[in-house]
Amino acid sequence: MKFVRWGEAGAEKPGVLDSDGNVRDLSEVVSDIDGSTLGAMPEIVPEALPLAGDVRLGPCVGNVGKLVCVGLNYADHAAEGGWDVPTEPVLFMKATTAISGPFDPVILPEGSEKTDWEVELAIVIGSRAKNATDGNAHIAGYCIVNDVSERAWQQEMGGQWTKGKSHDTFAPLGPWLVTADELGDPDGRPIWLEVDGERMQDGTTDTMVFKPKFIVEYISRFMTLEPGDVIATGTPPGVGLGKSPQVFLRAGQEMRLGIEGLGEQRLPVRGA
Amino acid sequence: MKFVRWGEAGAEKPGVLDSDGNVRDLSEVVSDIDGSTLGAMPEIVPEALPLAGDVRLGPCVGNVGKLVCVGLNYADHAAEGGWDVPTEPVLFMKATTAISGPFDPVILPEGSEKTDWEVELAIVIGSRAKNATDGNAHIAGYCIVNDVSERAWQQEMGGQWTKGKSHDTFAPLGPWLVTADELGDPDGRPIWLEVDGERMQDGTTDTMVFKPKFIVEYISRFMTLEPGDVIATGTPPGVGLGKSPQVFLRAGQEMRLGIEGLGEQRLPVRGA
Repeated sequence: MKFVRWGEAGAEKPGVLDSDGNVRDLSEVVSDIDGSTLGAMPEIVPEALPLAGDVRLGPCVGNVGKLVCVGLNYADHAAEGGWDVPTEPVLFMKATTAISGPFDPVILPEGSEKTDWEVELAIVIGSRAKNATDGNAHIAGYCIVNDVSERAWQQEMGGQWTKGKSHDTFAPLGPWLVTADELGDPDGRPIWLEVDGERMQDGTTDTMVFKPKFIVEYISRFMTLEPGDVIATGTPPGVGLGKSPQVFLRAGQEMRLGIEGLGEQRLPVRGA
Repeated sequence: MKFVRWGEAGAEKPGVLDSDGNVRDLSEVVSDIDGSTLGAMPEIVPEALPLAGDVRLGPCVGNVGKLVCVGLNYADHAAEGGWDVPTEPVLFMKATTAISGPFDPVILPEGSEKTDWEVELAIVIGSRAKNATDGNAHIAGYCIVNDVSERAWQQEMGGQWTKGKSHDTFAPLGPWLVTADELGDPDGRPIWLEVDGERMQDGTTDTMVFKPKFIVEYISRFMTLEPGDVIATGTPPGVGLGKSPQVFLRAGQEMRLGIEGLGEQRLPVRGA
């Protein structure tokens, strides 16, 4: 299944794509696409549900409890940023208030000069995981997340990365939550990002250092993962910080990004 | 007012203390003590409400959206850990799943040898704050949080502090949410922590580098703070990491900690 959330921002309804890619209204079946429904989704025949029409898509998971991120999880990306390749996953968290829709504007924060992109494969948790030994059993599905990052705030203001990772609209999520059974192996997937049509990131999930199954098991040693939690698994090379000279987002540009099997985001970039 | 949440873990009801310190049942008045009620609490006469009896107290805020922390915010604590005193607040986040009650056991994680304590003044947000210029206007009240930390996981496993800060039971919150008007100035308050009766931390909020009003304004530049978000404002000297030789928690011990005007926590320490 490919689940979506559609309608007005902040009041999205659950939906599912039919075989033609049309959005069908799931709101008579479940309350939302979130932690309360992901683990116990009933049998669905999308074609039997009402068409939603031509609607805005919101973030594909609602009520996200935690947005946990793995840093530097592609060896080449670590190198381009001047970091060592980690010997175990680097973890940090983004504020859940950063989550936005896959076609919503990304807002450059006031005073920002170094806002950057990071296309990432996101894991959506389907069942509680604590000291898990079978990570895959806890994965409801996958989606795209753009781990938008203000590099000056991340690196030049002291301490941890939190400041540069958490601004509103810094975590566009979606368009689709593709269930694990439908996606199949998340490995070997092209993953890419363009700014105004210029290909900036062009990798494959093959070069991830730590893979989803292990990531879920690893994180669950340090905190309990709950249904509806989302894990961003790191970005391939090609971020603006790693270019020579460095390039960052400017108001008026558009990001387009995708992962094979998970759809595409299109994100206009706006000033505050 | 001093608000509490009482009853079975995970199913706490809202309450309020009367002038004798008895818990009164608020559940006929509001659904919970959380972001949905903190900004619009009706007039309450505690003595007119039913007594709750001798009940377990849970974390004093429910449905916490974000648990944001300020690191190294007491100059002496930064020194004892070997860190520089920050020139602006260091921010990080704890997993909200770490939140537990003020008298619940703190569980030492499997394999943990360096679990440490940090008594802290916590700010509870009452209204949305984004680029705020009057931080105090967004503060619903204050409570105690113990920012329990696994130091090996925080410092010796690569990258960010997240791993050492997020285990279940690593954020005992309460016992009371004391409204800002009732508490008055949070400055100049004794703040202390004992392990098995031995005074480990013994400071005052006077020596905080950055104060609550500024902290709210500062964080709101990097992320939007929502009602029910909690901010831990840093710990005074005396953590186990800073002792010579270092000392850490062992199963069977008890922590007792308090801040003047905000009550006390008593936390038995247990193995996993």
